[in-house]
Amino acid sequence: MRLEAATCSRLFAASPVARLATSGRNGPHVVPIVFALDHDRVVTMVDAKPKSTRRLQRLANIAGDSRVAILVDHFAADWSRLWWVRADGKAEVTDAAEQLDPARSLLAAKYPQYREQPPPGPLITVTVERWAGWAASPEAVSQP
Amino acid sequence: MRLEAATCSRLFAASPVARLATSGRNGPHVVPIVFALDHDRVVTMVDAKPKSTRRLQRLANIAGDSRVAILVDHFAADWSRLWWVRADGKAEVTDAAEQLDPARSLLAAKYPQYREQPPPGPLITVTVERWAGWAASPEAVSQP
Repeated sequence: MRLEAATCSRLFAASPVARLATSGRNGPHVVPIVFALDHDRVVTMVDAKPKSTRRLQRLANIAGDSRVAILVDHFAADWSRLWWVRADGKAEVTDAAEQLDPARSLLAAKYPQYREQPPPGPLITVTVERWAGWAASPEAVSQP
Repeated sequence: MRLEAATCSRLFAASPVARLATSGRNGPHVVPIVFALDHDRVVTMVDAKPKSTRRLQRLANIAGDSRVAILVDHFAADWSRLWWVRADGKAEVTDAAEQLDPARSLLAAKYPQYREQPPPGPLITVTVERWAGWAASPEAVSQP
């Protein structure tokens, strides 16, 4: 069954991990991310060592093609519990402090690790243009 | 820490779910898949209703660009346990019975659901050209 946008964003926001897919000259790329959802914007920050940051494939790909897809999914041995949600949108990369600080606050509210060790960045902000989602059954996505 | 290819394929093979990223005219696409790893080949089959199968975005994208990336990741509240593995390769789509039958056997050996209800297909076979993997610590990927 298809999921409505409101259900998609609820499930997406509550997930601790997602997968960010980008397109580049070397083909598609996909990497796990931690993130926060703020209305229709997904924020995620690079927490690799600054030295290697600028060589990250995801950043190179976004510089060439800003379109991204972000997936959250739930797997279970019982396949009637499966669901997934995908956010398609456009990504922007920034190092500007006035954008990094509020993003760090959003991420720190979700992840205790970021309270102790704020991510250096850069920041990737994805404006969601389309939600898509699927569940194997209504029970799979019912609220607790 | 970077993971060696042998560790990557071991972790990948044992995971029940992965995410298949493809590139298309509408940008990148990513979807969860169940799969089996047979040496350097990943097999996954479409188990949607046959009627809608040919319209699936992943199949349209592979027809236009055979390069794919497949991600397996492990998330945990303790970030020292995180790891991920990515397989980059080329995908082929087929409906030929002589290829579907052995793929169904591989998948049925991993997933009980497929023993009762074999997937109709088509079959996507990805020849892995490169393994990439990362772990937050050696303990995250040590064998039990």
